Amino acid sequence: MVGGGQLARMTHEAGIPLGIKFKLLSDTPQDSAAQVVGDVVVGDYRDLDTLRAFARGCDVITFDHEHVPTEHLRALEADGIPVRPGPDALVHAQDKGVMRAKLDAIDVPCPRHRIVSDPEDVARFAAEIGGGGAERLGEGRWSGDGSGGFPVILKTVRGGYDGKGVWVVRSSKEAAEPFRAGVPVLAEEKVDFARELAANIVRSPHGQAVAYPVVESIQVDGVCDTVIAPAPGLDSELAGQAQELALRIAQELGVVGHLAVELFETTDGRILVNELAMRPHNSGHWTQDGAITSQFANHVRAVLDLPLGDPRPRAPWTVMANVLGGDYPDMYYAYLHCMARDPQLKIHMYGKDVKPGRKVGHVNTYGDDLADVRERAAHAAGYLRGTITE
Amino acid sequence: MVGGGQLARMTHEAGIPLGIKFKLLSDTPQDSAAQVVGDVVVGDYRDLDTLRAFARGCDVITFDHEHVPTEHLRALEADGIPVRPGPDALVHAQDKGVMRAKLDAIDVPCPRHRIVSDPEDVARFAAEIGGGGAERLGEGRWSGDGSGGFPVILKTVRGGYDGKGVWVVRSSKEAAEPFRAGVPVLAEEKVDFARELAANIVRSPHGQAVAYPVVESIQVDGVCDTVIAPAPGLDSELAGQAQELALRIAQELGVVGHLAVELFETTDGRILVNELAMRPHNSGHWTQDGAITSQFANHVRAVLDLPLGDPRPRAPWTVMANVLGGDYPDMYYAYLHCMARDPQLKIHMYGKDVKPGRKVGHVNTYGDDLADVRERAAHAAGYLRGTITE
Repeated sequence: MVGGGQLARMTHEAGIPLGIKFKLLSDTPQDSAAQVVGDVVVGDYRDLDTLRAFARGCDVITFDHEHVPTEHLRALEADGIPVRPGPDALVHAQDKGVMRAKLDAIDVPCPRHRIVSDPEDVARFAAEIGGGGAERLGEGRWSGDGSGGFPVILKTVRGGYDGKGVWVVRSSKEAAEPFRAGVPVLAEEKVDFARELAANIVRSPHGQAVAYPVVESIQVDGVCDTVIAPAPGLDSELAGQAQELALRIAQELGVVGHLAVELFETTDGRILVNELAMRPHNSGHWTQDGAITSQFANHVRAVLDLPLGDPRPRAPWTVMANVLGGDYPDMYYAYLHCMARDPQLKIHMYGKDVKPGRKVGHVNTYGDDLADVRERAAHAAGYLRGTITE
Repeated sequence: MVGGGQLARMTHEAGIPLGIKFKLLSDTPQDSAAQVVGDVVVGDYRDLDTLRAFARGCDVITFDHEHVPTEHLRALEADGIPVRPGPDALVHAQDKGVMRAKLDAIDVPCPRHRIVSDPEDVARFAAEIGGGGAERLGEGRWSGDGSGGFPVILKTVRGGYDGKGVWVVRSSKEAAEPFRAGVPVLAEEKVDFARELAANIVRSPHGQAVAYPVVESIQVDGVCDTVIAPAPGLDSELAGQAQELALRIAQELGVVGHLAVELFETTDGRILVNELAMRPHNSGHWTQDGAITSQFANHVRAVLDLPLGDPRPRAPWTVMANVLGGDYPDMYYAYLHCMARDPQLKIHMYGKDVKPGRKVGHVNTYGDDLADVRERAAHAAGYLRGTITE
């Protein structure tokens, strides 16, 4: 696996029971996964020679992140190393411009969008998609019919995640910043969404696929805060549409492994694709304790072309809450409180240095009563961060 | 953790989500746990200098096996390193003579027993406990009232496991072998048992303890083959007695961490203690997929003096079946069959070279229908071993 973050850490954990010999290419020996994996190569994935030397002797290569250059992946394939997901699929998770063009071509509903060349072009895009000058009414709602105009979302087509590389602009005057990096910029309508959903699926090389229940993903300041599985009150037909959409995207794009399709549920009951991720994903962390087979175990099985495991939930409700870094670097005393308060709590920490606002772990809770399950997850995540102290 | 076997492997796996920095002392770099742990010291646990150098910087030491000499453990404690379980507790799992004497002293029901000095003494022991010369009637049943006489069980007080170091003798003439090692020999009555049970509990340094449901353990050729959780049809009062007995033993012996109490359920409805193990145990492997908190996670929590997790089952029935090595060293094709046949199957392999009869992994299944859950576990274990081929 290339990349030493928490996704690699949890993939290794899931691979241990299968007897997988897991080898890691990590930027540093201190990376989250490098702390817990036996066979670690420290090196830079952007360097082709490093990547090639690492890949030698591997049966298959997969990824903790989407940053390995496409041409490097092609070089590994030319060396005879299976790369899963392959470069032709992965490019859709690397480049938002390529992703939008492909989704348009296969008739997948997306927010309206186009590549824009400069701030004036952003103004033209806003005029094209709507009346312009919409007013903010609060709580993510905007005036008008939700069909476009300013504000507009701008994204650099490469390199963004967790709110980085994304801007919300209300006028062409605010639109200068995204163009400074010299990377193509994608403009998208700001969708009048009711909530965010995610459809997680896993697909194997010979085309077997499993779909997890569609979840609700609650963001705070552009970062995933809470995931509820399944999405409460979601119309079963819409849930089925979301699963089918994710399966169709995986098939059309040739995805192997885990695919997360982040979705907007609009106020008028439609779903639109927001982002794609081709690796285990934060919106699937609940599966570690809430599903028969976790996203990590199924990613490993898919990458090795093994039959996939059952994705069904083990409890009526599972809630995942991210733990962000707070003021206390040592979590031992927080563990004492959280474990004593809730003996069913599942803690997943990443071994990262605690820095304020940094994702350092998550907790999972499950049970029959959604309000109780949510409260337990929120309390534990808040206590581990230090924002709740009783 | 001292010892690189599968118990250390699975303890590491369970420690990853807690952000535990896990350090391993392993006999070889190829040991089961050494393959998957990042921080491995290769060395001999029987050498005190090696053990001391390993322990330096550890917050606490625990064990994959019970073979570390007691005097070494005392030396580590004198160095200021907490050892859990401590030497005064662990000696009861190391020396069957010490264990029986202690259990007698605290009025725990055991098979009748005493240390014997030679084959003639074995004959005297047989005469003491019963009429002698009992006849085998088949299926582990013997004539008489089941109250003793030949056959007699002989065990070396140290070094035995999985049927090794254990003999069943029908006369003093058969009793020479156990005395050849020069280790004290314990004689025990051959109990007329209906089945074997195990009571697994976990206890923390300040005395919190949790009890898992009592399980049935089915042995084949002296090796654990199948564990059923909970033990089918077990009288709830007897189950409670077994849990209380295990909790009392842990408290009286000062056990910290996981304690497995292997029990005989006699044909007349009593329970007798067969063996003790102070570490995660084969009879608790079902907890990985069948309990809210696994024995490995709770062992880690106990050793670190963290509050313990909920030991209750997540499904009405969970069955564990051990996978023994068969003729096929490569299990990939067996995985294809097993995973495709049962998408809910949980496979746990140890990364060991496959040798005929060697424990190389186990499978867990769970569900509502015991017959179905048993069939799925037995099929998968048999297929992985190669004894089932369809």
